[in-house]
Amino acid sequence: MTELITSRRNDNIIRLKKLISSKRFRRENGEFVCEGKKLLREALMWNAEITSVFTCGDLEWDIPQGAKRFAVSRELLEYASSQKTPQDVIFTCKIKPAEKPLSMTRGNIILENIQDPGNVGTALRSAAAFGVDTVILAGDCADPYSVKSVRASMGAVFHSNIVEMAMDELAQCRENGMKIFGASLSDRSKSVEDVGLAGVTVAIGNEGGGLSAQMLELCDEEIIIPIAEGCESLNAAAAAAVIMWEMSKANR
Amino acid sequence: MTELITSRRNDNIIRLKKLISSKRFRRENGEFVCEGKKLLREALMWNAEITSVFTCGDLEWDIPQGAKRFAVSRELLEYASSQKTPQDVIFTCKIKPAEKPLSMTRGNIILENIQDPGNVGTALRSAAAFGVDTVILAGDCADPYSVKSVRASMGAVFHSNIVEMAMDELAQCRENGMKIFGASLSDRSKSVEDVGLAGVTVAIGNEGGGLSAQMLELCDEEIIIPIAEGCESLNAAAAAAVIMWEMSKANR
Repeated sequence: MTELITSRRNDNIIRLKKLISSKRFRRENGEFVCEGKKLLREALMWNAEITSVFTCGDLEWDIPQGAKRFAVSRELLEYASSQKTPQDVIFTCKIKPAEKPLSMTRGNIILENIQDPGNVGTALRSAAAFGVDTVILAGDCADPYSVKSVRASMGAVFHSNIVEMAMDELAQCRENGMKIFGASLSDRSKSVEDVGLAGVTVAIGNEGGGLSAQMLELCDEEIIIPIAEGCESLNAAAAAAVIMWEMSKANR
Repeated sequence: MTELITSRRNDNIIRLKKLISSKRFRRENGEFVCEGKKLLREALMWNAEITSVFTCGDLEWDIPQGAKRFAVSRELLEYASSQKTPQDVIFTCKIKPAEKPLSMTRGNIILENIQDPGNVGTALRSAAAFGVDTVILAGDCADPYSVKSVRASMGAVFHSNIVEMAMDELAQCRENGMKIFGASLSDRSKSVEDVGLAGVTVAIGNEGGGLSAQMLELCDEEIIIPIAEGCESLNAAAAAAVIMWEMSKANR
């Protein structure tokens, strides 16, 4: 059953736009917005709970029964979309309930104050690819359920365990046996090659400022990716990829 | 000597905007635009040839003699800038002349049809950090001298050797002894851990489609970063970071 929408003032369009623009509204409703066929294919593959599909074209896929289907004009899709040249389909999904990270795992990653949604999404994608159990968001990170993060995650958001945690919760995890290493450019940092990365939780800090002093206090070890002299640092998502790659090798 | 500009129709402002918007104009003039103090500090550190500086604030740094200095209002800076909320300074730089890649090197990287300027810039930054000699751009890549790429490169653009090469030039390099490995998701690909990466040139393909058939034909070996089942691939810049990290280890 597909419902035709022709007005910008339709309640479903208003709700869609609000889910795109407001993090709070996403959290209140436990829903987020994805754009494009590629993400829809990923959502179907990972059995994400799709709640509604807006399309101005024909979809050759079987959309799950529970999802509402809306037919819209290209113009209306452009109006609703966050992108200048949107694709044929926009859909909404339930946010997967987060599970607490296990102390004994194949490894977790903490992103602290990573503010670029592309970096957060790319880190999610790499975490899924390298078999990291839980992605923990600490401090003031970009919302992983924003359209930009979701796009950069390339579907990782549909099947990753993503948890927002406060500093005292992380301290509690550590007391329960979680081993936390912090990526840090300090003099006392050890090379990622010289530490055992199996089953640890690695914290990656903000693009400009690195990890907070609070987070560094929770760290059992400070680690560094050795780079050429004169080069200040790596992009946060690139550093995360290299560290998770090393974690995946240590966990084999 | 600082010249005051108050009009949007000032020739220097018109030229600045054209350098921001047009790749062709950048190439004709051999110049590109950078925004922000952080990049200015990097440009000074790497002795980049700064040609002009536009600022609406005070600069505590010594700008080289050759550079023209312009004082502008914040409003005019906002008008000229590519960003919604620009920083205090915009400046222009000469494009560093490219040197042909050496066949015998600590390794080069080829980016083929990488279309996201953030990915191109991030790959440049990682290449500098991991001591890669030359970044070769093949096919239809985002311009490394666009404002977005330059920002993502975090100054790598000031000291990297960046060369645009056609397929026949690459074939020539290969005949002269350059060993080319292609990052590819095919069944015959070997793990990056199982091949010798010292002194090789690794090609990374397009975000969606991977390497072209033409490029694969030039490759001595196809390599892959082993990832979890069900995960399609890594972000191009994340894959490039992991591969260059492995190259840097092989070249020690």
